Amino acid sequence: MNLILCEPQDVGLDGLVVLTGDRAAHVRGVLRARPGDAVRIGVVDGPKGSGEVLALDADRGTVTLRCDLGATAPPVPPIDLLLALPRPKVLRRLWAQLAALGVGRIRLTNAEKVERHYFDTHVLDEATYRPLLMEGLQQAADTRLPRVSIHRQFRILVEDELGPAPSDERRLVAHPGRGPSPAALPPDARQRTLVAIGPEGGWNAFELGLLERAGFAAISLGPRILRTDTACIAILALLHTQQRSG
Amino acid sequence: MNLILCEPQDVGLDGLVVLTGDRAAHVRGVLRARPGDAVRIGVVDGPKGSGEVLALDADRGTVTLRCDLGATAPPVPPIDLLLALPRPKVLRRLWAQLAALGVGRIRLTNAEKVERHYFDTHVLDEATYRPLLMEGLQQAADTRLPRVSIHRQFRILVEDELGPAPSDERRLVAHPGRGPSPAALPPDARQRTLVAIGPEGGWNAFELGLLERAGFAAISLGPRILRTDTACIAILALLHTQQRSG
Repeated sequence: MNLILCEPQDVGLDGLVVLTGDRAAHVRGVLRARPGDAVRIGVVDGPKGSGEVLALDADRGTVTLRCDLGATAPPVPPIDLLLALPRPKVLRRLWAQLAALGVGRIRLTNAEKVERHYFDTHVLDEATYRPLLMEGLQQAADTRLPRVSIHRQFRILVEDELGPAPSDERRLVAHPGRGPSPAALPPDARQRTLVAIGPEGGWNAFELGLLERAGFAAISLGPRILRTDTACIAILALLHTQQRSG
Repeated sequence: MNLILCEPQDVGLDGLVVLTGDRAAHVRGVLRARPGDAVRIGVVDGPKGSGEVLALDADRGTVTLRCDLGATAPPVPPIDLLLALPRPKVLRRLWAQLAALGVGRIRLTNAEKVERHYFDTHVLDEATYRPLLMEGLQQAADTRLPRVSIHRQFRILVEDELGPAPSDERRLVAHPGRGPSPAALPPDARQRTLVAIGPEGGWNAFELGLLERAGFAAISLGPRILRTDTACIAILALLHTQQRSG
């Protein structure tokens, strides 16, 4: 944890926070904080700042902090993800990594090569994925929790829900062997990028056609075919770099 | 599997290969190949080509192929990795991903923030990691098996074994908050890149000093602090892109 993340309702009007569970254990056991020490703290979707350790209660396992938080929250990461639902085991590993890399919104969707039973997993329950997203934010010292939505009908998602691209949104679709590397894209003034990443085995022609009509331009990572999770991380890293330098 | 990978000794002088185990099951169950079909095949550290299915033996679970292999092996990936030994659980997940992204050589090393018991894991046994590297190569359709070595003494590795950088080798060290992004590096004519990635918690000042004296220039992934496995994938993706365009 490079940042202790709290819920907005955890922070009292006086700036006091009482940590319990994992976060208290981290402050006590890993940071070995003592009264008077400062730890980095943030509020979900809110500002970051510093927390002064006021008290450590060994019996209850709690840590009391007084927070001095900034006035504004960090910006929402400029990349959004449209991801064909991966295998539950892969998705479980991805949640924290996606939040750590920085994603504004994650849309999980069906596709021909997504197996139907993938939708039945509890890895899609908010109670499962929210703590994993929080873990990623605490790793990366960010507070912006990705918004997550699940779409069982690809066509309805692309044609009706996404519709034509807003003028400030660039749309990209990753497909092995098609289009340039994300790093080779021309500089782009648009504020946000929505990138679509297909299932193992790729998008089918119908899906690619729908995405192209909705304004998604093809990108590729070169000749090597990567697993979904590896490809997601590589593409997000490349797009973040490109967006920063663009 | 986007490529069926065989050992050199599996290929007879007549080009015949008898697949067993996972690879045979993949050809039968996933590719649903029938006699006369062609599958992509490669030889470890050797050429790639096409394999014509001659026979499928349901009782023995074998598949017999006749291979038509190219004359030359694909090039060794131009990136080498010097990685502070991660937690066994993380390393287990990384092996296949490193091979899929493409690494010529993987040197695993000690560092102050590497816990000693990490060296006792069977994830460092060749019998464990070789099949995982093979899995990554079969995913990425490459044949070049990364060479792996384990170094318990960081100083001896850097000062004596690596020594001064050869003229065709660029050396980089990733450290949060220091140096430019890999994507912002100037074009470089050197043939190979050796990149050092530290432990969770980073290199200490002594380690950074040794690396700098051995010619490693600092790079950073920006303000977000990533887990070792996420950082490895991001850095390899960025360097591969940069090396291709340089």
